[in-house]
Amino acid sequence: MTTRASADSTREIPEATVARLPIYLRALTALAESSIVTCSSEELATAAGVNSAKLRKDLSYLGSYGTRGVGYDVDYLRYQIARQIGVTQDWPVIIVGIGNLGHALANYSGFRSRGFRVVALLDTDPSRQTEVVAGVDVRPFRDMEAIVRQHGVAIGVIATPAAAAQEVADRMVAAGIGSILNFAPTVLSVPPGVDVRKVDLSIELQILAYHEQRKAPQEQSV
Amino acid sequence: MTTRASADSTREIPEATVARLPIYLRALTALAESSIVTCSSEELATAAGVNSAKLRKDLSYLGSYGTRGVGYDVDYLRYQIARQIGVTQDWPVIIVGIGNLGHALANYSGFRSRGFRVVALLDTDPSRQTEVVAGVDVRPFRDMEAIVRQHGVAIGVIATPAAAAQEVADRMVAAGIGSILNFAPTVLSVPPGVDVRKVDLSIELQILAYHEQRKAPQEQSV
Repeated sequence: MTTRASADSTREIPEATVARLPIYLRALTALAESSIVTCSSEELATAAGVNSAKLRKDLSYLGSYGTRGVGYDVDYLRYQIARQIGVTQDWPVIIVGIGNLGHALANYSGFRSRGFRVVALLDTDPSRQTEVVAGVDVRPFRDMEAIVRQHGVAIGVIATPAAAAQEVADRMVAAGIGSILNFAPTVLSVPPGVDVRKVDLSIELQILAYHEQRKAPQEQSV
Repeated sequence: MTTRASADSTREIPEATVARLPIYLRALTALAESSIVTCSSEELATAAGVNSAKLRKDLSYLGSYGTRGVGYDVDYLRYQIARQIGVTQDWPVIIVGIGNLGHALANYSGFRSRGFRVVALLDTDPSRQTEVVAGVDVRPFRDMEAIVRQHGVAIGVIATPAAAAQEVADRMVAAGIGSILNFAPTVLSVPPGVDVRKVDLSIELQILAYHEQRKAPQEQSV
């Protein structure tokens, strides 16, 4: 299936590299959208905001070394990374909690374009259950187990208030969901083998603050 | 103000380290909330999801080396990192675009707890301008320049549809905003010296997909 032994998808990739693969994929997608066919490791590293030695090391885990003097084939590298991450396949996803954030997530085009298909929106509030968001019906939370079974859902998104999140996570785990993306501002406890990632929307603001703080004293002296 | 020359805040810190500082801060906050007073570099590295050698190297840029056999003082290290990032000061922030995402961001407790104070919500839609979200009035977009001047706003958040985002960014830059957090699914063009960070809500889902893909073939054989 692969042409190089080192591209074996069972090979262990360091967690920090895994976290950067989506960022490389995003940078490559931007290059492709600008009709760029090949790029050097320096160009890709700049687009992704990492140093090029780290980029080359990360890509070596995928068995991808580029061609000296030519660089990387943008489309092929996109495919390699997407396959490695697993986003060449279709991932059915459910979103629980259809408040403002749930609405925003259901409408978010970046999920669909990366292979994440929202198959159901769930809420406990009966007044929400007549809504259709981004073409998907809002359904009662009690239907979750049946929906997970029907669509083979492996990834659940929690967009509820903090107080409801642990119960939702427990029910997701019991229904067979193995990965949870948690937007609720609380720490979830899950059994071993279940992955939880927590989104902190303030991380990027903090990185901006770091740079902004350093601009201030210099008063345009750049 | 600092006790070690190496903690000089003008010292250049690598961009990748800057990006991890908010993650260390989040991990330290979680430890502090669990009443943990000191932690080893291994414990902190595990909580932050990085390897401990990288953590120690990152913290060395802050002049923070811990104490052999004791580890790091959680509260002091939190303070050091927060100061380095710049979130010990108050950052007035405006949010433009008060649709679902704008509402969710205005209500997001994680901004306020990190020193980001939403001073204004702005929208071009007159029907939104009677709303109050999280205690803040929605005001007409044309008031932005006056609000930026009045509050000394350096950071703007764009939560508009893609088609409106570039115009909003141009107006922000003209008003003197130096850092933009962009949630709109589009690439913004800004002059040199202005920082833009784009939030991609699918990044964390992709990391989950990577792990989920690797669980599937083994069928519970962990």
